[in-house]
Amino acid sequence: MLVVKIGGGKGIELGPVVDEFAEIVRDGERAVLVHGGSHETDVLSAALGHPATTITSPSGHVSRRTDRRTLEIFCMAYCGKVNKQIVEMLRARGVDAVGLSGLDGGIWRASRKGAIRSVEDGRTVIIRDDLSGRVESVDDAFVRVLMEAGKTVVLTPPAVTEDGVAVNVDADRAAAMTAAALGADELLLLSNVSGVLRDVGDPGSLIESSREGGVEAIRAAAAGRMKNKVLAAEEACRGGVSRVVIGSAGGERAIAAARGGAGTVVWADDSLEEAPGEVAR
Amino acid sequence: MLVVKIGGGKGIELGPVVDEFAEIVRDGERAVLVHGGSHETDVLSAALGHPATTITSPSGHVSRRTDRRTLEIFCMAYCGKVNKQIVEMLRARGVDAVGLSGLDGGIWRASRKGAIRSVEDGRTVIIRDDLSGRVESVDDAFVRVLMEAGKTVVLTPPAVTEDGVAVNVDADRAAAMTAAALGADELLLLSNVSGVLRDVGDPGSLIESSREGGVEAIRAAAAGRMKNKVLAAEEACRGGVSRVVIGSAGGERAIAAARGGAGTVVWADDSLEEAPGEVAR
Repeated sequence: MLVVKIGGGKGIELGPVVDEFAEIVRDGERAVLVHGGSHETDVLSAALGHPATTITSPSGHVSRRTDRRTLEIFCMAYCGKVNKQIVEMLRARGVDAVGLSGLDGGIWRASRKGAIRSVEDGRTVIIRDDLSGRVESVDDAFVRVLMEAGKTVVLTPPAVTEDGVAVNVDADRAAAMTAAALGADELLLLSNVSGVLRDVGDPGSLIESSREGGVEAIRAAAAGRMKNKVLAAEEACRGGVSRVVIGSAGGERAIAAARGGAGTVVWADDSLEEAPGEVAR
Repeated sequence: MLVVKIGGGKGIELGPVVDEFAEIVRDGERAVLVHGGSHETDVLSAALGHPATTITSPSGHVSRRTDRRTLEIFCMAYCGKVNKQIVEMLRARGVDAVGLSGLDGGIWRASRKGAIRSVEDGRTVIIRDDLSGRVESVDDAFVRVLMEAGKTVVLTPPAVTEDGVAVNVDADRAAAMTAAALGADELLLLSNVSGVLRDVGDPGSLIESSREGGVEAIRAAAAGRMKNKVLAAEEACRGGVSRVVIGSAGGERAIAAARGGAGTVVWADDSLEEAPGEVAR
């Protein structure tokens, strides 16, 4: 079982990577596709006169400010545009794809963030109405029902709280939870970056694997949005995924390249500091 | 089994009708919700600088011109905005809803319209690249899988061709095909009109039922978009649905009102001119 997450950042060409994913499914491998849509959301937000804004936490973590109107636009971009585009591409390539958000069937159950501290012009303010959260559990039984019906599942945010509120969640971490819940061997986090760089300005400084200096070295080097990917990789590994590759979605054979180790490979057995004697399944 | 179709026209307030639908599901009745999104598509199209345009056939039938960009906007409005909004509302009301388009899992298999004749400024032109079609079959087995998993299915266009092209289809007729395929007893086509009027300018001229003058009288009175609803009602009846109510989505108890006969009721046994001795199941 393989979970592939394709980022929604600027400049990612879906054609080749969806082609390759379709090939894998047609070859009989069980695979789930998770995708983002942040660039499309930014473009749509700007066009609709509700430009994207961000929240910067006191520790420097940056996330999308998600008010009700932003969530609506978010759903249009993630669920309406990108999800249906990928489903159409897969169907045209002979794959019986079903596109769902984490809201549908409650596949991604999330907790909603309460009061969020945001640093604005040097002052810390509290935001209480943000519609964002974190995936706490995955209804893998429902995903399995779909797979047993012969469907290939294409998943995207939002997720949903226990009381039925749709929330914006990080798609990398949602993909990690999904991979763990489905007992996947491998998770690929593909985006418009080639992996974790020691020096963000030097493409030659790629950290190839957690074998080099453990997950700590990768975590220490990750900056900005890459922090979430490393966190996602660690969560997947703790959940039983053998290895996670943070790599590029670009090029003709991006999935094969990542599976072959191109990018930054996080091994489960390097990421279990809490239980050093335990062997990941 | 009940199929409710809620129109996507201007002025339809979703809250009360979704409340009522949720109540029906919580009471244990098996029901599928189908919805449109034409007004939201028009609003989004205008905001994005790609205003909606229509095709008028030589016989006067009006439909949405669906080029590639329109289909993208259509998916954002139908699948991204309205579908996820309804799913969120249902989940908040305790219903385990799953929102899907007819593209997902190939639920609505369509034929694509070939060359379309369009009357423009008095001249007839041929449009060959329109992404519109007609639902030819419904994958009711997959819908049943979802229902057996305890899910309430919320369906919306587009549909998909055999070779994987997403196409804009009429949601009333898609709902009719769905009701027939699922063996529903009843189909409600609820929208911002109260039913079929003998005189479109006189709200008092409602045709209450096909008992009055047969389906012919209803068909003869239907104008504009109402023609599709009558066609849908006839198709549902021919497919085995006992009765179809064309009624209003407005008011506090729109579903109960329609089930009680408010609107125009089309009975299967009045619509089987081709086989007058046959009794609809």
